[in-house]
Amino acid sequence: MPQDSATKPLIEVLSGRRQAVPPLWMMRQAGRYLPEYRELRAKAGGFLDLCFTPEYAAEVTLQPIRRFDFDAAIIFSDILVIPYALGRSVRFEAGEGPRLDPLNTPEEIAGLVTHADFGKLEPVYEALRRVRRELAPQIALIGFCGAPWTVATYMVAGQGTPDQAPARMLAYRHPDAFAKIIDILVENSIQHLVGQLKAGADCVQIFDTWAGVLPPREFARWSIEPARRIVAGVRKQLPNAKIIGFPRGAGGMLPAYVEQTGVDAVSIDWATEPAMIRERVQPRTAVQGNLDPLALIAGGAALDRAVDDVLENFGKGRLIFNLGHGILPETPIAHVEQMVARVRAYKG
Amino acid sequence: MPQDSATKPLIEVLSGRRQAVPPLWMMRQAGRYLPEYRELRAKAGGFLDLCFTPEYAAEVTLQPIRRFDFDAAIIFSDILVIPYALGRSVRFEAGEGPRLDPLNTPEEIAGLVTHADFGKLEPVYEALRRVRRELAPQIALIGFCGAPWTVATYMVAGQGTPDQAPARMLAYRHPDAFAKIIDILVENSIQHLVGQLKAGADCVQIFDTWAGVLPPREFARWSIEPARRIVAGVRKQLPNAKIIGFPRGAGGMLPAYVEQTGVDAVSIDWATEPAMIRERVQPRTAVQGNLDPLALIAGGAALDRAVDDVLENFGKGRLIFNLGHGILPETPIAHVEQMVARVRAYKG
Repeated sequence: MPQDSATKPLIEVLSGRRQAVPPLWMMRQAGRYLPEYRELRAKAGGFLDLCFTPEYAAEVTLQPIRRFDFDAAIIFSDILVIPYALGRSVRFEAGEGPRLDPLNTPEEIAGLVTHADFGKLEPVYEALRRVRRELAPQIALIGFCGAPWTVATYMVAGQGTPDQAPARMLAYRHPDAFAKIIDILVENSIQHLVGQLKAGADCVQIFDTWAGVLPPREFARWSIEPARRIVAGVRKQLPNAKIIGFPRGAGGMLPAYVEQTGVDAVSIDWATEPAMIRERVQPRTAVQGNLDPLALIAGGAALDRAVDDVLENFGKGRLIFNLGHGILPETPIAHVEQMVARVRAYKG
Repeated sequence: MPQDSATKPLIEVLSGRRQAVPPLWMMRQAGRYLPEYRELRAKAGGFLDLCFTPEYAAEVTLQPIRRFDFDAAIIFSDILVIPYALGRSVRFEAGEGPRLDPLNTPEEIAGLVTHADFGKLEPVYEALRRVRRELAPQIALIGFCGAPWTVATYMVAGQGTPDQAPARMLAYRHPDAFAKIIDILVENSIQHLVGQLKAGADCVQIFDTWAGVLPPREFARWSIEPARRIVAGVRKQLPNAKIIGFPRGAGGMLPAYVEQTGVDAVSIDWATEPAMIRERVQPRTAVQGNLDPLALIAGGAALDRAVDDVLENFGKGRLIFNLGHGILPETPIAHVEQMVARVRAYKG
């Protein structure tokens, strides 16, 4: 929970109060586009060492705040820390993305541990406590987890896969076994989010990066329903918890997602149709997004116009300015500065 | 143009007349899941040899009709035949997808040929004539082209790329140069579609496979507007031409696409939200789709339910039953038979 009562613009927006200048942060803002990140990353060893060394994780979390004075810091961690705490093997090999031991038969799933060892995640909570101590009181601190569907796509396949076919196939062929993975992830995600909020996070985000491949029936079952249960489960323990959902690629399913999960904000990707969001989503929840990360690489007039499009599309309502997905490693820092200046000059 | 006046259920639907049992075909229905295709493919040599040998192209076009009695045959060809006829180098290397010489600077684009050598595409028209002669009169023959945006993504990058970043970046940085590629593709696609209709195609489809990555402003400029110009250009020469658009991943942009392009049907992917389609798309145009190709691999009860979902979602209006994207090579033929039987048993 917040350790002071200073007004945080991002939390204001999540609480129903639009800000004239929208609060601003970037998904993956602690990352490889920053030289100070690359330097620490080289020192830390592996990616998980960086995540699980509180001193390092806190430092990289704070780096983008020092540079850009964003309205929020997001704890440096990974969506695969839950499978890791469930005892699954999780490796990050350079340039290859994550590797896990696949889990793709009902027999293997029957043996999946149901309760994570949260002691393994203590470094995440310690990093949050460190960041909160150093962070200015008006800056929000964000915790997060992967949505069960998205985390399950990696657990089933053992790696990232085109169209997440292995997890979708398992869900078609063995829905009960697949539901067991989802149920375990729901319960442990609730605990991990509560742990982060208790350690100093002001709000949390649920990243459903691969929600967009699901047909409507499967989207309802594997994306909306688990998110609804996580939101309800966190609020059962912490009734005022603020929660952002990010069902990337959900498109026309966004109104149903927002209505049924009860999230305080929904993060939208750059291809989302804006009128639907203004008419059917923003009246009931805050909207976070949705600059194309490639526009941020392009810079110049294209970037200005893309920033203006986001502000014009959503700035009259409750908006948290962000990207439509994570910032890309090749992004010039000067373009981030250009974007920040333009958002902060907005007279909404 | 059709060489006889037998009633074709697919053309009836495109002409505004709903059919009680929806006409049925599958994207990529002439393909590797069929042993007779694999056999001919092995004999033909390269992929382009198969496309450009009328005898072979006609034969593989007809193979799925013989097996499944579909309501439409789609000519066996490729969306990259237009760049090929523009003199670009186009190679298909086994297991790697297409390779072209990249075209990613304003200087290179300035040198792009503006008029295709349609003599190079004569084998496509000859294959259409052959198929039309052999096809039962109630079965529609479909011609096609790639949408300019999607074809441009391959021409710019020289290959398939994650999120089509090279083409999107070029469009941000050099919109005028990128527009030149699009303009050339629009004009030559019109001629190619007209050529196919004159050779015996009953309708044509415009495949915009990568439309879904475009932000709204870019979607309007690079997907909708070129499709609108192609539809208008074809109808200027052939006023009754029937045209299907497939802006895959368009989500909430589908109503605008349909309204502004004037297509007779829109093909939708498996993740499209159905209520929006029923309320805002199907009243003005036919809908084609949208079974998840993975459900077709899964088979069993999951396939039955997925088929029923498509029929229940869209069967009360004008529907052409299809997949939400191409059939996958590992699909069991028995599952295709199961799908066909279930669609044809529909009492709508």
